[in-house]
Amino acid sequence: MFRRLMSFDEAKNAINQHIKPQPLGTEEVPLLEAHSRVLSQDVTSDLDIPPFSRSTVDGYAVKAEDTYGAEENTPAKLKVCGTVNVGEPPQIRVAKGEAAEIVTGAPIPDGADASVMVENTQRNGAELLVYRAVTKSENVMKKGSDIKKGETALKAGTVLGTSEIGVLAALGATKAKVYKVPVVAVLSTGGEVTEPGGKLPPGKIYDINAYSLSAAVLEAGGKPVYMGVVPDDKEQLRKALEHALASADAVITSGGVSVGPHDLTPKTVDSLGEPGLIVCGVAVKPGKPTTVGLVGRKPVFSMPGHPTSALLLFHLLVRPVIQGFAGRPVREIAVVKAVAGARMFSAKGRRTFVMVKLKRADSGGLVAEPVETGASGAITTLAKADGFVEVPADEQFIDAGEEVAVSLLKSAS
Amino acid sequence: MFRRLMSFDEAKNAINQHIKPQPLGTEEVPLLEAHSRVLSQDVTSDLDIPPFSRSTVDGYAVKAEDTYGAEENTPAKLKVCGTVNVGEPPQIRVAKGEAAEIVTGAPIPDGADASVMVENTQRNGAELLVYRAVTKSENVMKKGSDIKKGETALKAGTVLGTSEIGVLAALGATKAKVYKVPVVAVLSTGGEVTEPGGKLPPGKIYDINAYSLSAAVLEAGGKPVYMGVVPDDKEQLRKALEHALASADAVITSGGVSVGPHDLTPKTVDSLGEPGLIVCGVAVKPGKPTTVGLVGRKPVFSMPGHPTSALLLFHLLVRPVIQGFAGRPVREIAVVKAVAGARMFSAKGRRTFVMVKLKRADSGGLVAEPVETGASGAITTLAKADGFVEVPADEQFIDAGEEVAVSLLKSAS
Repeated sequence: MFRRLMSFDEAKNAINQHIKPQPLGTEEVPLLEAHSRVLSQDVTSDLDIPPFSRSTVDGYAVKAEDTYGAEENTPAKLKVCGTVNVGEPPQIRVAKGEAAEIVTGAPIPDGADASVMVENTQRNGAELLVYRAVTKSENVMKKGSDIKKGETALKAGTVLGTSEIGVLAALGATKAKVYKVPVVAVLSTGGEVTEPGGKLPPGKIYDINAYSLSAAVLEAGGKPVYMGVVPDDKEQLRKALEHALASADAVITSGGVSVGPHDLTPKTVDSLGEPGLIVCGVAVKPGKPTTVGLVGRKPVFSMPGHPTSALLLFHLLVRPVIQGFAGRPVREIAVVKAVAGARMFSAKGRRTFVMVKLKRADSGGLVAEPVETGASGAITTLAKADGFVEVPADEQFIDAGEEVAVSLLKSAS
Repeated sequence: MFRRLMSFDEAKNAINQHIKPQPLGTEEVPLLEAHSRVLSQDVTSDLDIPPFSRSTVDGYAVKAEDTYGAEENTPAKLKVCGTVNVGEPPQIRVAKGEAAEIVTGAPIPDGADASVMVENTQRNGAELLVYRAVTKSENVMKKGSDIKKGETALKAGTVLGTSEIGVLAALGATKAKVYKVPVVAVLSTGGEVTEPGGKLPPGKIYDINAYSLSAAVLEAGGKPVYMGVVPDDKEQLRKALEHALASADAVITSGGVSVGPHDLTPKTVDSLGEPGLIVCGVAVKPGKPTTVGLVGRKPVFSMPGHPTSALLLFHLLVRPVIQGFAGRPVREIAVVKAVAGARMFSAKGRRTFVMVKLKRADSGGLVAEPVETGASGAITTLAKADGFVEVPADEQFIDAGEEVAVSLLKSAS
């Protein structure tokens, strides 16, 4: 175990080097429950969509050439040879000079190559007058025009939304092969933290982080498992971490990582297996006590106890790993340009993240107003903030009026 | 029952007039399952957060005035009077000239009003040297500074995300009072449609709409109930609709609404109860056969059979109703400006929606390229499109190069 703070970039590199953000496996789920899941393999169509050429109008299936020249005053005269029903293969063939009654969605019968809209016809018994010419394939949705047999209809890695689920249904699928959802155990540590629900004992505060981090795990595409509050006790913490590692693909703890006498978590994580701690403190503000360990292939992220810091560091370091485990595209946090609404200071030698709220200036541009962080402990801070501005470690401050890049937290998931 | 096509605005007005998009009830859910749900009442804090003033550093709780003037060469000399443990009420009082050992998160003891960081001190037995002055409240997160007792911490109508769930946990809540999720039955009609799963009979296509519309219901904040394919039979359709209305808050059908011989759905919906049909066809392209009925207070939306048309009309007419039933903010579809990449025609006398894909021009601006709609039947069309452009009913076309407003479908939910 080592004690040297890493720079933010070093910490990122250590994570990227040790943790391969690859999907953890695949499973098959019912199509009706597949929304927002990620396809684990390409889907190749084994039929043409539509499977046959269909009329897109109610009217008559014809040979287009039989209507050439037809106009209001010079209608084409055809003979109705029968009817094509919807949902059935046609029982008839359209010969030269003939037309078959057809409804929207019904198969175009052999011999026909276009459909005439009923509005452009007049019917007298078996005689049909056509008042408007159609071109070949007019009002026909051709076999395979949507998806061709053998075509890759959807690619592995696609997140399934409305139209993708529609495509799978069109192919006749009732299930989808998707990546497994990574299971992430979330626990809180610290002698001052107690689980919500009961009466608050004096000197204690209710656990916030296990709840807000569970919600953040969900937004990143993971399945959070709430494991409650673990007291500041070496043996209990070790047991809780072993249990968490046995039942989940990754573990997030918060609290109990400061440089005080109670920093049990990093030591305990380091003792659980190889390679142990890979990040032990990061030169950022807030978030300095953040540590990352690895037990076999399972990461243990230990976040600061302050709720805003915990969520911020989650977004910066943990979210991309969960997205990777889920097979999701690891998206960079979106950034918008704004003007600093006030001077923003850096903490000496540490990359500093200043939480900001975006406002629209009279000029139309965006202004980034720093949000009071209440010593970075306030859960309300994050609710008020739209994102954060980074002040580099080697700069004293960013001055009011300077252009800044605001990383948007609320679009991060 | 009436047959007159309404303009798009008339249809919107009829829906707004007849259907009040209000939440359908409230329920209590475990906080860990409350993500994305909508608060049904204001949440007032019955405690201060934090419940006591806390140290934000490891070090010593002091009277700030005892440190005034302290510097590297002229440290203040204090007497250590005891220790404050984290998670317990302090057993000591800090008198003038005294300091109490304290860790991050522990309560500031009576008499003290600031914390000195351990890095700025030197300890020799009971003697403490302080090398840096602190101001009153420095390194202290004051009682109630995050949320005050009696304060409205969250407002009714708030969608619960990570920080809102954190706020509820901070208040000691393990449950959240939220609006019920509207249940929406989704069924398909049409003799040519068959449920995915089995072998495709000749002349049939697999049902797409019940799947893609179920996914769209989910994205709008509803709970879809898949009711399968109902054959083109009056009695079976009536039974299916009665069953759907009995078990859901709203019903969506698709197909079977064209002006052909198979338009059973509108007639059947109209016969099920008052007020019956309120919209019977809309002068838009695509989407003309769309109808809306109301049986008591439960709407029945009947969408076109073409998958792209069905989803488009869902976004335009159905989504806001489901969002309202769910107690969600009814958001307008986001719009971006772009330049038409090709001429876009309107259908005679009908407001026309042209599906488009956005591309970045060399100049940096956006270009809206029409997406081939395959006679509006193609499920792949919507997957390819980013949104749509409206061509007004009274204009023949929008020319290539003209500025257009693109409504973004993918940000609509």
